[in-house]
Amino acid sequence: MISYEFPINERIRTLLRLEELYVRTSKLVAREDALDHHMALLGIFEIMEVASRADLKSDLLQELERQRQALAALRNNPHISEDALEQVLGEIEITHTNLLDMTGKFGQYLRENEWLMAIKQRVSIPGGVCEFDLPSYHYWRKQSADRRRADLERWLTPLLPIKNGLDIVLKLLRDSGKSTHYTAKAGCFQQVSGGKTVQMLKVSLPTDVPAVPELSANRYAINIRFIVPSTSGERAKVIETDLNFTLTYCNL
Amino acid sequence: MISYEFPINERIRTLLRLEELYVRTSKLVAREDALDHHMALLGIFEIMEVASRADLKSDLLQELERQRQALAALRNNPHISEDALEQVLGEIEITHTNLLDMTGKFGQYLRENEWLMAIKQRVSIPGGVCEFDLPSYHYWRKQSADRRRADLERWLTPLLPIKNGLDIVLKLLRDSGKSTHYTAKAGCFQQVSGGKTVQMLKVSLPTDVPAVPELSANRYAINIRFIVPSTSGERAKVIETDLNFTLTYCNL
Repeated sequence: MISYEFPINERIRTLLRLEELYVRTSKLVAREDALDHHMALLGIFEIMEVASRADLKSDLLQELERQRQALAALRNNPHISEDALEQVLGEIEITHTNLLDMTGKFGQYLRENEWLMAIKQRVSIPGGVCEFDLPSYHYWRKQSADRRRADLERWLTPLLPIKNGLDIVLKLLRDSGKSTHYTAKAGCFQQVSGGKTVQMLKVSLPTDVPAVPELSANRYAINIRFIVPSTSGERAKVIETDLNFTLTYCNL
Repeated sequence: MISYEFPINERIRTLLRLEELYVRTSKLVAREDALDHHMALLGIFEIMEVASRADLKSDLLQELERQRQALAALRNNPHISEDALEQVLGEIEITHTNLLDMTGKFGQYLRENEWLMAIKQRVSIPGGVCEFDLPSYHYWRKQSADRRRADLERWLTPLLPIKNGLDIVLKLLRDSGKSTHYTAKAGCFQQVSGGKTVQMLKVSLPTDVPAVPELSANRYAINIRFIVPSTSGERAKVIETDLNFTLTYCNL
């Protein structure tokens, strides 16, 4: 199956963007090659940019507290595993504390590092980080993978409370999903939502079906059209046959 | 040894930038992971930007022709291997022809591909190429490595005559290098060039010497200072000890 998650509000959209950046960056840090570590550094810069929205931290704190209360109310519910519940509550508490402990502007210690900021300034210039642009960065790239990785982890670690917070929120959001199978007639699907709010929709279909969903949604309706995948740049064409897919509604 | 090449004029600077981008992109195309192929695509976009300077192609054609004439004059020189010379001349001729065959604006076929341009537009936005931003790109990233690679090669191949041209010019430029050993007293080195022009300077020193060269040069003097490598962002400090290094002068 191939799935496409569509956030319906700006808050979830930001969390999904950050999740993608954190996953990508961690993966690149774990690799050996200087090129991968260069890309990892770009990932750290992108995380800085996206996460420096002033209200992200308080958003996460508020959502974690809301979830903590909702989950705590399930204590003594015979249908819920006590152990699993206490584990989630424990994780929420630790993450909440770590988020509270983050003081000052997000990634400020990175902004104060002139060496890093000199690189950040040049990465947006095409081909702009050559050895003659930044000799000391060239020197860094020639160091051992372990040494580079130690630096990258030192820069990335203070950014992790945000990751842990959004991981919990997105996990709970995904766990909330309720799936239904539908058929898109001639590649199109519409559903009137009748004011029911949803925070994220997920469209899943078998990997071998050559179709890409495009989704728009508001509080009144969900519209999905499936288009023919093409990398040629021609105008997107809607698939003309009926097509089965799964739609998952996620809401916290 | 770790080497730092410093182009002295804008033309060589552009060629070195492009060389780095071509090397990086080819390396990433050869890998398997969707993340690497994403980065490869970014490389193609950067090549487009840097190489679309209108005079790059005619610069390369002119330089190749100049080199062809200089090399052809070496025919029948007993100190030069006939075979090696003919091979280089053959390569120059093929590359010259392929460059002449490139018509229109560099990478125009990429600019006309709306699908690619939609991606290019979003990659400059931090975290801006999520699956909900570009579902059809998400679909592409889920295809097999071979299929993605075939696309990447199709996009990259028409850009290769420029690469082959600059590879020849940079190889001849590097081959022209004359090296001298020097000592930088208390981390500093100055040389009056007396109007002698040079197109590129290369500073080499052993990998285990913790020093990074910073070079400035004009037609009157070459200045190099060696600084203490540091990623902490403190103000760069000049090394206070004497330091041996090799300086290579490259000129076509």
